[in-house]
Amino acid sequence: MNTLLEQIVTDCGHYASQGQVAHYIPQLAVVNPNKVGIYVISENGENFHAGDCFDTFTMQSVVKPLILLLALMDSGSEKVRALVGVEATGKPFDAFNYSDQALTGANINPMINTGAIALCTLIEGDTYDIKFARLLELARKLAGNDELDVDESVYLSEKETGNKNRALSYMLKAYGLIDDPVEEILDCYFKACSILVNCKDLAQIANVFAHHGRNPATGEEIFSKEFARYVNATLATCGMYDGSGGFALNVGFPAKSGVGGGIMGVIPNRMGIGVFAPALDKHGNSVAGVEMLKRFSQVMDLSIY
Amino acid sequence: MNTLLEQIVTDCGHYASQGQVAHYIPQLAVVNPNKVGIYVISENGENFHAGDCFDTFTMQSVVKPLILLLALMDSGSEKVRALVGVEATGKPFDAFNYSDQALTGANINPMINTGAIALCTLIEGDTYDIKFARLLELARKLAGNDELDVDESVYLSEKETGNKNRALSYMLKAYGLIDDPVEEILDCYFKACSILVNCKDLAQIANVFAHHGRNPATGEEIFSKEFARYVNATLATCGMYDGSGGFALNVGFPAKSGVGGGIMGVIPNRMGIGVFAPALDKHGNSVAGVEMLKRFSQVMDLSIY
Amino acid sequence: MNTLLEQIVTDCGHYASQGQVAHYIPQLAVVNPNKVGIYVISENGENFHAGDCFDTFTMQSVVKPLILLLALMDSGSEKVRALVGVEATGKPFDAFNYSDQALTGANINPMINTGAIALCTLIEGDTYDIKFARLLELARKLAGNDELDVDESVYLSEKETGNKNRALSYMLKAYGLIDDPVEEILDCYFKACSILVNCKDLAQIANVFAHHGRNPATGEEIFSKEFARYVNATLATCGMYDGSGGFALNVGFPAKSGVGGGIMGVIPNRMGIGVFAPALDKHGNSVAGVEMLKRFSQVMDLSIY
Amino acid sequence: MNTLLEQIVTDCGHYASQGQVAHYIPQLAVVNPNKVGIYVISENGENFHAGDCFDTFTMQSVVKPLILLLALMDSGSEKVRALVGVEATGKPFDAFNYSDQALTGANINPMINTGAIALCTLIEGDTYDIKFARLLELARKLAGNDELDVDESVYLSEKETGNKNRALSYMLKAYGLIDDPVEEILDCYFKACSILVNCKDLAQIANVFAHHGRNPATGEEIFSKEFARYVNATLATCGMYDGSGGFALNVGFPAKSGVGGGIMGVIPNRMGIGVFAPALDKHGNSVAGVEMLKRFSQVMDLSIY
Repeated sequence: MNTLLEQIVTDCGHYASQGQVAHYIPQLAVVNPNKVGIYVISENGENFHAGDCFDTFTMQSVVKPLILLLALMDSGSEKVRALVGVEATGKPFDAFNYSDQALTGANINPMINTGAIALCTLIEGDTYDIKFARLLELARKLAGNDELDVDESVYLSEKETGNKNRALSYMLKAYGLIDDPVEEILDCYFKACSILVNCKDLAQIANVFAHHGRNPATGEEIFSKEFARYVNATLATCGMYDGSGGFALNVGFPAKSGVGGGIMGVIPNRMGIGVFAPALDKHGNSVAGVEMLKRFSQVMDLSIY
Repeated sequence: MNTLLEQIVTDCGHYASQGQVAHYIPQLAVVNPNKVGIYVISENGENFHAGDCFDTFTMQSVVKPLILLLALMDSGSEKVRALVGVEATGKPFDAFNYSDQALTGANINPMINTGAIALCTLIEGDTYDIKFARLLELARKLAGNDELDVDESVYLSEKETGNKNRALSYMLKAYGLIDDPVEEILDCYFKACSILVNCKDLAQIANVFAHHGRNPATGEEIFSKEFARYVNATLATCGMYDGSGGFALNVGFPAKSGVGGGIMGVIPNRMGIGVFAPALDKHGNSVAGVEMLKRFSQVMDLSIY
Repeated sequence: MNTLLEQIVTDCGHYASQGQVAHYIPQLAVVNPNKVGIYVISENGENFHAGDCFDTFTMQSVVKPLILLLALMDSGSEKVRALVGVEATGKPFDAFNYSDQALTGANINPMINTGAIALCTLIEGDTYDIKFARLLELARKLAGNDELDVDESVYLSEKETGNKNRALSYMLKAYGLIDDPVEEILDCYFKACSILVNCKDLAQIANVFAHHGRNPATGEEIFSKEFARYVNATLATCGMYDGSGGFALNVGFPAKSGVGGGIMGVIPNRMGIGVFAPALDKHGNSVAGVEMLKRFSQVMDLSIY
Repeated sequence: MNTLLEQIVTDCGHYASQGQVAHYIPQLAVVNPNKVGIYVISENGENFHAGDCFDTFTMQSVVKPLILLLALMDSGSEKVRALVGVEATGKPFDAFNYSDQALTGANINPMINTGAIALCTLIEGDTYDIKFARLLELARKLAGNDELDVDESVYLSEKETGNKNRALSYMLKAYGLIDDPVEEILDCYFKACSILVNCKDLAQIANVFAHHGRNPATGEEIFSKEFARYVNATLATCGMYDGSGGFALNVGFPAKSGVGGGIMGVIPNRMGIGVFAPALDKHGNSVAGVEMLKRFSQVMDLSIY
C-alpha cells in the first residue's frame, strides 16, 4: 500500500500547477503550493502514508463537520436541523446566496460558512472561549493528538480580513437566526478554522466518522451512529462545496475540503484518509488532493455508490 | 420481511394526508391519493412486497436516471459531462434557476428537467421516435417486463400543458445547448415521463443499478460499472430534488422520485426497492414513499453513510 | 440649429467604435456600424436634421412604447397595469430575471421583451395578423408616413432565431399570463420589431408623445394625455434598459432605444427627436446615439429634472 | 390652495389604514399612524399647508439625496459615479440583491441603503463626527432651519438593531468598496437617518432641488445645477424604492420617501413639497403620502412627463 501511495503522490504532484493557493486570507497566500501528502488508516487499523503527510496546515472548512458534530452532541439533532438545513445550495461556500426574501435556516447548510457560523451558537459553554475550548478538545480526541492547537498568525489574519464572514453573520443576526454578539461567535469560528493539523490527524478524525463514532484503535464510543450518519450524509451531498456532485461521481465517498489544502475522506465501515496539497481549484478544493483521492478510490474500489 | 413491509405500509398510509397529488398535469390530478405500495428485491434475489405494489403509475422523473444511462451508453461519459453538469442546483426541479448570465451546461443537472431534456439529444437514433423506442426498450430490459408502455392520456396531457418545459427547452436552444426541434425532443421526453410502471418494475430497475449494471437474476451485464456509479452518485446528491440532503441524512441511499408518486431506491451491492404513494410534499417527493423508505432503512440499517 | 446638429454628428461619429452592432439576429449583424443620423422637430414645428437621418433601420424595441400605447387604447390602463407592471427590473432586456417563484405581472415591464410580448395580447383583433395590421396603422399615423412597413428579411431572421423570446413566451404561458398560441403572438411581435423607419419617423412619433397624444402638425388628438403620461413615465424610468438611470442623469428626458440602433427622444411639451447609429453599448443602446442626445440636451438645456 | 390641501388631507387620511408604520426599528413602531400633513412652496414663493404639517418625524431615507448631494459637493460627480451606480436595482431598499459574483459599484444605487452608506465615505471630514456635522449643517441650510437635530432615541434604536445595515456594510468592505471602520460609517448614517424634520423642512429642501441649487427665498446658490440634476434624475428613477415606476406614472415628478413616513417632492423649476403620514405600503412608501401627492399632481397638472 505504501508503494501505491508513493506512486499516487508522485503522479499527482504536478496537478498543483492547475490551481492556486488561497489568497483571500493573507497568511494562507504564503504557503508552498507544491506540498503533497496522503495518510490512510486501513480497515484493520494499519497506517500507510506518503509525501508531505506530516506537514501542518490549518483545518479551515475541514473543521465544519466537527462544529456540526459538537452542535449535535451538545444540542441534539432536532435543534441543529431547526437552525440549519441540509440541502445543497448550488452556490460557493461564501455566497450571499440570498434573494431579497427573508433568510431562513432551510436555506443554509452546515458545510457553508453561514451554516457553520450559526452552529457555533449551539455548542455548549458560557462564553465563546469555552465553546472553542470544547471544540478543540473534541478535535484532539478525534485525532488522538493532544497537541492540536491554533495557528495564531492565521487566526489573527482571518480575524482582520474576515469581512465577508462578518457580513454573513450580521445577516444571520438581522434575520433572527443568531442572537449572540457577532464578533464573539466569529472569534470562535476563526480560531476553529485556524487549528493546525497534518494528514495523519485528518485520517484519524475521518476514521472515527467512518466507524460511526467509535475510535477503532481504542474502542471508545465518542459519539452516536445517528450523529455520524448525520455528518457523513452531509459530507456526501455538500462536503466539497459546489464540486460535491463531481466528487461523488469521480471519487464516491463522504469528504470535506478546506481552503488550507486539506481534505478528509470518510469511507464508512472501512477507512479514514487525510490528504494535503494547498493549490485549490475554482471551487476551493485542493486540486492534487481531489486527484489523489480519485486515483486511490479507483484502485481500491472505494466508491460507496 | 413481508410482515415488516405490511407493517410499514400500514403505519405510513396516513402520511398521504400531509401531501397532495401533482396537479400541474391534469391527468395526474385524478389519481387516488391513498394508494401505498412497496416492493423489495433482497440481496439473495428474493422478492417481498406489500400494499398497492402492483398498481401502475407513470414514471415521471424516475425515468431521468434511464435517460442519463442511455445517453451514457450511446454517447459516453465525456459527451454527457460536457453537455450537462452534476452539481446540485439548490432549486426546484422545474426552476428557471438562471440569472441573466449565459446558461451553461455546468449549471444544469441530469436529475432536473433542463438536464434530462438536454440529454435526450445524446440518445442514438435518427428520429426522436427511434430514440424513444430505444429508451422504452431499455426500460423494459431493466425491469424485465416487456409490457411496459406509455400511458397515452398522461402523455397527451403533458404535451398539452408542458409550457414550462417548452420554456426551459427554448432557453437551452437559445444558449446553444440543443439544436434539434424543441417539440420533437419534448415529445420524446413527455413519452418517457409517461411510461407506466408498478413498484415491482421500479425495484427490478433499481436492483440492476444496485448491482452496477448486472441483472442479478439473469447474470446479464447490461451496462458498465462506471455508468452505474455515474447514475448512482447523481441520484445520491440530486435524486430527490431539493430534498436530496434531507433524504441522504434520513434514509441514506441513492434514490429517484417522480411526481407520479413513485420512488426507486438503490442500495449498492444489496437491494432494489420500488415504492408508490401519489401524495407529494413541497419538493415533489412522495410523502408516504419517503417515510416508508426511511423506516425500512432504519430497521434494516441500509444507510451507506 | 442644423449647424449644431451637423457638429454633433461629426463629433459623435467616432463613438461607433466603442460599441458593436447587434449580432444575435443575423440580419442585424450586417449593418454598416458607421451610420450616424439625427432628426429634431422643434417646439414651433420646425424640422432640423443632420447625417444619415433618412437611412432606414428596424424599430426593434423602439416599437415597445407603441405596443404599450395600443394596448392602452384598446384595453384601457387598468387591464394593462394588471397584466404588466411598471417597475424597473434591474436586469437586461432579455433576462430570465426570474427566480423559482411564480412569475407575476408585477415583475415584468412593458419596456422589456416579456412585458411587450404579453401586451400584444391586449391589442384588439380577432387574429394576430389583424392585431399587427392595427399596430402598423398606428405607427404610420404617429409617424405621418403611410409607407412604413416590415423588413421581411429581418422579420424572418428574428422568427428563425428568436428562441429566447420563445422561452420567455412559454414561461408567460406556463404562469397563465398569456393564453394565445405562442407562435402567433411572437409572429406579431417579430413583425412589430421589424418595422423599417428612419430618424424622421422616430422624431414624428416622439413629437406626438411629447404633445401628449396630439399631433401638433395637424392638431389631431390621436390618444389621451393619460396614456401619453403612462408611456412617457415608463420611458423615463425604463426606456433605456439597465442604462435608464444613467440616461436620466446624463440626458434627462424619456427615450426608447432599440437594438437596430435607433433611439426616440421625447421632450414633453417641447420636442421629438430621432437618432440612429447602429453600434451598441453593453446595455443594447446605441453608443453614438446616446452621446448625440447627451450633447444636444446639454446645449439646449432639455433635461426635465 | 390651502382649501385644496385641506381637502386632500381630509380625503387621504383613511389611506393610513391600508398600511402600517415601520416596525423594524423599535422607535418607529410607536408612532401614531393617523397623522397626515402636507406643505407646499409654490412657484412664486408662497407657502401653503394643511394637517399635521408641523409634526416632526425622522428623515430616514429622505436624507439619502442629501448624502448624495454632499458627496457630490465634496468629492465631485466622477468619484461619486465611480463608487456608486445609478441604475434601478429592481429590489427592495435593504435587499441583499447580490448573487455570488463580486459586488461592484455599478450594482448599487445612492437611493438604497448600500449606496448611501458607501457615499458617506465621500463626505469630507477627518472623522465621521465631522462628516455628520457637515451633513447636518447642509440639511439646516437647505431647510432654512438651524434647529434641525438628531432624535437621540431613534438614532440609538437604529444603532442597536441595524444588523442588516451592518451586513450590507461588511459586504461593501469585503469587496473593497469602503475602507473605513464599519461602525464609524454606520454611526454617521444612523444619525443622518434620525434627523428630525417636519413637512415644511422637507418642502424647503425640495424647493432648493427644484430650483437647481438656488434658494429662491434668499437667492443664494448653494450647489450647482449639475448636482441638482444628478440628484433629481436619481430621485425620478429610484427615489421611491421599487415603487418608483408606479410613482412616475401616477404622480410624475422626482421624490424621495423615508420609512419615517415623510416624502419630499421636487417639481423642477416650480415647487417643493413635503408630506407626512407614517403608515407605509409594502415598498416602504407612505400610503397616504403617495396618495396626497398623486391627487395634488393631478389637480395641478404637475407631472413632468
